[in-house]
Amino acid sequence: MTAHREYNFTGGMPDPASFPIEGLVKSAVRALRRVGGDGFVRYPGDHGDLNLREVAAVRFLRSHGASVSPSDIAITNGSMQAIDLICRAYVRPGDIVVTEELAYVGTLGALRHYGTNMVGIPVDKDGMDVEVLERRLAEIRDNGGRPAFIYTIPVNQNPTGAQLSVERKARLIELAEEFETLIVEDECYGDIFFEATGSLAMYATATPGRVAYLGTFSKTIGPGMRLGYVIAPQATMLRILAQRYDGGTSTFASVILADYLRDNMWEHIAETNDVVRRKRDVLLESLRAELSDLARCRRPTGGLFAWIGLPASINMDRLMASFSACGVMCTRGRDFHVDSKDVSYVRFSYAYPTHDDIREGVRLFGDCVRAA
Amino acid sequence: MTAHREYNFTGGMPDPASFPIEGLVKSAVRALRRVGGDGFVRYPGDHGDLNLREVAAVRFLRSHGASVSPSDIAITNGSMQAIDLICRAYVRPGDIVVTEELAYVGTLGALRHYGTNMVGIPVDKDGMDVEVLERRLAEIRDNGGRPAFIYTIPVNQNPTGAQLSVERKARLIELAEEFETLIVEDECYGDIFFEATGSLAMYATATPGRVAYLGTFSKTIGPGMRLGYVIAPQATMLRILAQRYDGGTSTFASVILADYLRDNMWEHIAETNDVVRRKRDVLLESLRAELSDLARCRRPTGGLFAWIGLPASINMDRLMASFSACGVMCTRGRDFHVDSKDVSYVRFSYAYPTHDDIREGVRLFGDCVRAA
Repeated sequence: MTAHREYNFTGGMPDPASFPIEGLVKSAVRALRRVGGDGFVRYPGDHGDLNLREVAAVRFLRSHGASVSPSDIAITNGSMQAIDLICRAYVRPGDIVVTEELAYVGTLGALRHYGTNMVGIPVDKDGMDVEVLERRLAEIRDNGGRPAFIYTIPVNQNPTGAQLSVERKARLIELAEEFETLIVEDECYGDIFFEATGSLAMYATATPGRVAYLGTFSKTIGPGMRLGYVIAPQATMLRILAQRYDGGTSTFASVILADYLRDNMWEHIAETNDVVRRKRDVLLESLRAELSDLARCRRPTGGLFAWIGLPASINMDRLMASFSACGVMCTRGRDFHVDSKDVSYVRFSYAYPTHDDIREGVRLFGDCVRAA
Repeated sequence: MTAHREYNFTGGMPDPASFPIEGLVKSAVRALRRVGGDGFVRYPGDHGDLNLREVAAVRFLRSHGASVSPSDIAITNGSMQAIDLICRAYVRPGDIVVTEELAYVGTLGALRHYGTNMVGIPVDKDGMDVEVLERRLAEIRDNGGRPAFIYTIPVNQNPTGAQLSVERKARLIELAEEFETLIVEDECYGDIFFEATGSLAMYATATPGRVAYLGTFSKTIGPGMRLGYVIAPQATMLRILAQRYDGGTSTFASVILADYLRDNMWEHIAETNDVVRRKRDVLLESLRAELSDLARCRRPTGGLFAWIGLPASINMDRLMASFSACGVMCTRGRDFHVDSKDVSYVRFSYAYPTHDDIREGVRLFGDCVRAA
């Protein structure tokens, strides 16, 4: 069987039709002329463009009610570069990093690359299980160790869609204090909510220096911009930026996006969230119609992903091969597991494909699951 | 004495008035609409945007007469990111890297960061002294070692302005073969020539795999783009890109610049080189008028820098302090030395300041030198 079409449910890609081409065209004309040559023949420096840092500060204030100085913000090539720099700043081979047991593939790849000893904590609908976390931290301390940091995606967790509850956020901060470790709070999906918005970021409530916060414009605008950021107080920031040897992130891309977001950020986010929410609905309806007996999936309240559980008896190798033959592209659960455990889950990213492709893709998905 | 003005001769910054604002505005409108949302909601990937890789291939073919496949090109955040990735791929702490004795500050910083044992080779007007190089390579081998790589800026060398001669390029390749090491050929100033253009790149003539080639758009367009590239055959490239954890370089900046360069590259280079050549002339005339007795400087035949020798007896600490008090910003010779030797030189970058600022800056420079 050869695939004539592809149904692309991979990657954290936003809706292509929502990418604001005309808005960015207008901003390119305006920002390039305003900044002028002098702004582009200089190096951006490790903190990057001030305009975009100011936008990130405005966003943080509105989302989390806390003022952040632009000097505590550094623009990075997506939040992924920030993760890489943090790994390089904090991890020596053999060091422990604690993370959700199921976590972002990019982070896991970087942690493995730097020889990290990863400790995974189970995740339920309220995020990382802080009781298990406490026990693991105590064990680590009893063995004379201390984690380099605790990495978490607290809202719209990737891949599970979990929302770390307010109580657990508070407890996580307490535990980080008690066990003297840094929290890396990756809020990469922090603008994508379909119902209630998220709770306050830990960065906004913890003691300064306890949390490094990561944000990005990849999920509301597009990963092709390569614009994310890290927020951290000076000592933490200096340690992170000491690892940076790339001359800084593109001023060119930054000033144009900053110009666009200054006027359009919240309207754009509201519009794209509406588009993405409808795609989520199409996915959930299709799953219900095709596979209610075989697949289980929590209703995502934000973010870009559905984490779909399949019967435990299923042969994942054969299933993935048959997806591939059908042109259904999704991500295997194992890829998200800290220990590469072959969990009987797949992750569907629903913001990229069209409504028709979601329906047809899920129909083919259903055929494959049923056949397996 | 307080400085009322600044005369900025630091950094490798091109002429600000030559930055093609209107050309990039036009290309932004055209490229954004042509590429469309789908091109920007995807990750650029480790190799980066194909459009800009094709432009780099066209440039290499015209400059060096050799075809390079875009699949052997990866776009990086300036050539500086490529240097960082190469260090990470090839250097373990304590490893030897051979370089010109006077070399790019950014490269030296990265090499030091990764714990490199740097071996500096003297430079004259024809570039790295290959006879000394041969002796040092033999010594290294006799001690059971082998350099991780030889780093060189063969054309318009930073900071000395040297041009590695054709004969020395051939000899350098032979030595790299004999001593089985990689040449990192950083041609960051490879488009900036005022008289004859440069000789063929070593990448174009050496056995594939012997050389990794670095290029950039920072010096002809602007460092604020953060767009450079590395050219290397597959095995070398995979080793370099295995260190990359940033999701790739901005598609957004890349497609716009590629659109501009496709139609305007050679005309733009000819125009900016003309502007920069005239600034070089103003600098040389001013130096002759103000300081012919005290400063010596080879006439740069390309690039952005004049490497100015001062009397050996001069107190560099006091001199730099008096420059600072006068608002004259230039880079101290010591910063370029592999062993931070306090050579009695300063580097003047002449493309950024205006003609008037060059004249006035050199006049103040002359006062300071004479007073010291």
